[in-house]
Amino acid sequence: MKIGVLGTGVVGRTVAARLDELGHPVTIGTRDPGATLARNEPELDGLTYATWAADHRAVALATFAEAAAAAELVVNASSGLASLDVLRQAGAENLAGKVLLDISNALDFSQGFPPRMGVPDTDSVAERIQREFPDLRVVKSLNTLTASLMVHPETLPEPTSVFVSGDDAAAKATVVALLRELGHTDIIDLGDITTARGTEMIMPLWLRLMGALGSPAFNFKIVR
Amino acid sequence: MKIGVLGTGVVGRTVAARLDELGHPVTIGTRDPGATLARNEPELDGLTYATWAADHRAVALATFAEAAAAAELVVNASSGLASLDVLRQAGAENLAGKVLLDISNALDFSQGFPPRMGVPDTDSVAERIQREFPDLRVVKSLNTLTASLMVHPETLPEPTSVFVSGDDAAAKATVVALLRELGHTDIIDLGDITTARGTEMIMPLWLRLMGALGSPAFNFKIVR
Repeated sequence: MKIGVLGTGVVGRTVAARLDELGHPVTIGTRDPGATLARNEPELDGLTYATWAADHRAVALATFAEAAAAAELVVNASSGLASLDVLRQAGAENLAGKVLLDISNALDFSQGFPPRMGVPDTDSVAERIQREFPDLRVVKSLNTLTASLMVHPETLPEPTSVFVSGDDAAAKATVVALLRELGHTDIIDLGDITTARGTEMIMPLWLRLMGALGSPAFNFKIVR
Repeated sequence: MKIGVLGTGVVGRTVAARLDELGHPVTIGTRDPGATLARNEPELDGLTYATWAADHRAVALATFAEAAAAAELVVNASSGLASLDVLRQAGAENLAGKVLLDISNALDFSQGFPPRMGVPDTDSVAERIQREFPDLRVVKSLNTLTASLMVHPETLPEPTSVFVSGDDAAAKATVVALLRELGHTDIIDLGDITTARGTEMIMPLWLRLMGALGSPAFNFKIVR
């Protein structure tokens, strides 16, 4: 399945590298590919995009619009605060009818730590995207765990849970199949796109757990 | 340890019954004990207070103030929307120096389902209580699972996690010991009282999980 990953940060890179490894043709989308390749500031993984890309030659780099146009499934790996702008640049015409796997969170660190929620409790990034792009089939998932565990959940000592939220049953089935490819086994369908509020609002607890445990290498398992 | 449980609903009853069973002298506090005993409307467990109390004769009923005055540890089992009012009735002089185990959540269902958060994301019920009653040693815990699992976590197929938040280390140690008595084994100290925001904001996901799973009999396990 041709996949476009919107976002060149560590989350986008991690997901793109793993999807490439699984055999999917992957293009990463960015605002300005030339500027991304020229950037000297390393990301949280310590690597500039160019250095990372040299080790992942099969992953293409293109504009948001080109990455979306070529893709059957699009992954929103941009910050939830920037996602609407990123998707506008991708272009509604390039997104229409496609599945969007939205893995973003909207945390506003502008006032320091702990961050504010970037979206009120009556809304979510996923719903904002779905409202503005009604022809896009938005599925929220994977926003509740760190990037390395999104793509390698088997590195934890036991199976854990992930969630899907969305209005389109076929799009959710496509995402669930992709999650299984990534190694997820307990995938809980929370319901329509409004249920994404629940997973987006888990971030404050997630951040405090990372602080208490001293590591982002954990995940929620729903024991029942 | 003498314990006062503020709140006559299912949560208060469930916690009071279990603490009594464990050998603690327990008094349930209510606004007006006569009115509570005269009430004909059953609670969510299908029982009026009087019917429930007939099966739990060792659990006393008193005013909020009397229950707080007699207690070494107070459990806030009132709705988070009402908690400040309940604690004002209990009286700052009856609460000073005591440990408050705050198990409340502030969900506002006045606009229907899903509920609004009753507290903004820069605050929590626990912090509001701590600010208004600085001599009370507030510890947030147990607000992330259903009442029957608060007191019988061993009924789930495997051990799960609970969290504590608070500014007073000795008060947290008292609560942790009580949680162990209840059967909890993975108790994660998130940090100061502001970390209660994280667990209070997990409620929207909790409610959606209850809907998806068709049961409140689940809990979060932090796998790491």
